[in-house]
Amino acid sequence: AREMNVSDLEKMIPPAGSITYDVVRSVSPVLEHYSRESLLGGLWKRPELSPRDRSVVTIAAIIARLQTYEMPMHFALALDNGVKPAELSEIIAHLAFYAGWGNAMAAVAAAKDVFQRRNIAIDQLPPVKDKPLPLDEAAERQRATQVAGNFGAVSPGLVRNTTELLFLDLWLRPALAPRDRSLVTVSALIANGQTAQMPFHLNRAMDNGLTQEQAAEVLTHIAFYAGWPCAMSALPVAKDVFEKRQK
Amino acid sequence: AREMNVSDLEKMIPPAGSITYDVVRSVSPVLEHYSRESLLGGLWKRPELSPRDRSVVTIAAIIARLQTYEMPMHFALALDNGVKPAELSEIIAHLAFYAGWGNAMAAVAAAKDVFQRRNIAIDQLPPVKDKPLPLDEAAERQRATQVAGNFGAVSPGLVRNTTELLFLDLWLRPALAPRDRSLVTVSALIANGQTAQMPFHLNRAMDNGLTQEQAAEVLTHIAFYAGWPCAMSALPVAKDVFEKRQK
Amino acid sequence: AREMNVSDLEKMIPPAGSITYDVVRSVSPVLEHYSRESLLGGLWKRPELSPRDRSVVTIAAIIARLQTYEMPMHFALALDNGVKPAELSEIIAHLAFYAGWGNAMAAVAAAKDVFQRRNIAIDQLPPVKDKPLPLDEAAERQRATQVAGNFGAVSPGLVRNTTELLFLDLWLRPALAPRDRSLVTVSALIANGQTAQMPFHLNRAMDNGLTQEQAAEVLTHIAFYAGWPCAMSALPVAKDVFEKRQK
Repeated sequence: AREMNVSDLEKMIPPAGSITYDVVRSVSPVLEHYSRESLLGGLWKRPELSPRDRSVVTIAAIIARLQTYEMPMHFALALDNGVKPAELSEIIAHLAFYAGWGNAMAAVAAAKDVFQRRNIAIDQLPPVKDKPLPLDEAAERQRATQVAGNFGAVSPGLVRNTTELLFLDLWLRPALAPRDRSLVTVSALIANGQTAQMPFHLNRAMDNGLTQEQAAEVLTHIAFYAGWPCAMSALPVAKDVFEKRQK
Repeated sequence: AREMNVSDLEKMIPPAGSITYDVVRSVSPVLEHYSRESLLGGLWKRPELSPRDRSVVTIAAIIARLQTYEMPMHFALALDNGVKPAELSEIIAHLAFYAGWGNAMAAVAAAKDVFQRRNIAIDQLPPVKDKPLPLDEAAERQRATQVAGNFGAVSPGLVRNTTELLFLDLWLRPALAPRDRSLVTVSALIANGQTAQMPFHLNRAMDNGLTQEQAAEVLTHIAFYAGWPCAMSALPVAKDVFEKRQK
Repeated sequence: AREMNVSDLEKMIPPAGSITYDVVRSVSPVLEHYSRESLLGGLWKRPELSPRDRSVVTIAAIIARLQTYEMPMHFALALDNGVKPAELSEIIAHLAFYAGWGNAMAAVAAAKDVFQRRNIAIDQLPPVKDKPLPLDEAAERQRATQVAGNFGAVSPGLVRNTTELLFLDLWLRPALAPRDRSLVTVSALIANGQTAQMPFHLNRAMDNGLTQEQAAEVLTHIAFYAGWPCAMSALPVAKDVFEKRQK
């Protein structure tokens, strides 16, 4: 990913609906300071995660928490940081399932304007039907068997939809690399405090190519966008996953 | 409840402030596809839960998660699916207590427009004072004794308000059947990931007439509106409640 | 803090963007009733917590849950209740870290209008650099050592930022008394259901001068703004903290 610099970021701010530094300063001068120095001039420049990956994490957190004020700026920044329009499109569809339909709809409303301003048309977006990625049949059989054994009698509809809609359909769509799909999922889980679902998806993310250093930096990054308590609550879960994988 | 069909739903979309299929497609063609096929043409047609109950669950999830973009469409759809204006009104008041005053206020803002467009006036809404439903005194005594024993010394005000405002007042209002009030409560708890409060309220819902099959389908349904992780985190809690009741 | 009365509150309602009692009544007469009688005429008048502290708790809950509809009214009410503009400004900056940057940005958008209407200019707001409060070096060493021991190898960036940005910088800013900073933090944690982070911060709040009676009343108060389930889930955590401190 190309390197991002603060002037790129400032150029992006503000698209319609966003909040300028001037407005932030008029309410809290120190919040402007932290935004410039700690966040854009600090966190986003750390080498442990590329600006492109930081945008993926940020977008996922913002959509998962319905921070609509942040969407226009961060969708535009993501495209500048190398997230393809097709990937942003697919991230929103993915989060309909992992953060709720209404969260995705708010993201649709914001992304529509960003796409229009950049003349991004439907031929640049992932089609409804596309050649699916190869399925890891052994892993999927293990997952499906375990979930069905635990919960098949509790909510048959949910268990069937999980297999058919998510793992045999959504996750096999080629518009988003499995590693990125996992990165989006893990980020949404952390941002919504859903630590119970983290072990499966953090392991899957690392199976899909996310390194431990990158996963650790996701926590560092997401603390700013989801708030420190979400990141701190994810720490013991990440620790446990990291330790078990090292054995 | 009368049967719902997709053309009914499409007729409803979009009221003011909602997002059309065209807009969804302009950002994510596959999200339009999932919305039409998996959600409106799939989930909503499953017989395990009536369209009317699905609307109750959906409204509760949307208000609980403050998905303001979804409110106009789903409030209108709920009325079409047989939720009475008085019930929608009472659901919003109920969720002021179970999802927060600010969530209810956002719902008020959206419902006001829907009511105005349909000429729903105050004489169709539940009055402030109404003949209370009969109280199950034994069950309430047990609940109140247990909570007071555990927490009466921790936060006396909260414990007293819980009894006086909720269980001796709100829950006895006749504008919403206890079974529906429970359905709203359980849906809000799942949608906000508040699994610790689920056992009491899921048991109460089933005592109030919600069948196990319906409860299971609430999980299937709410996964779309609150996101899969909320539904998956509710699964083990539901399993435990179901199993204990079968003994 | 001066006493608040309902007419003060009504005078405040509605600033731009808020919802009047007339609108509430047009959707739910009983919700108007509860708002007037149970909330403004009841809860807010309880002596266990001053109106000023209630405003601090309310603001924190509203920002933490992104209840944007409530922000204009409650920011204005907070100023009327004795929260200084500099304190409101600093609360927003604090919650950028404890509830997420996007939550703070939504609060900035609402506070900007309130500040403008009251001619609150930047010279009334906390400066970027100010003489830091004295550091309790022993307590901070203990905290830092424990976190570094547990998680230093899991996410070094997060652990370092926690020390350098939060405990050696934000928490030492003099624009908000440590007791109030703790009150904001605890309120945000309860409002977001982040009970795992509560023991540390509730103990810190009480070390910083929050009495047990006040902490108990925070739960009573926040139930209305964050919803009962958040308050109920915080009860056992508060009980445990209270009991351990009494030994």
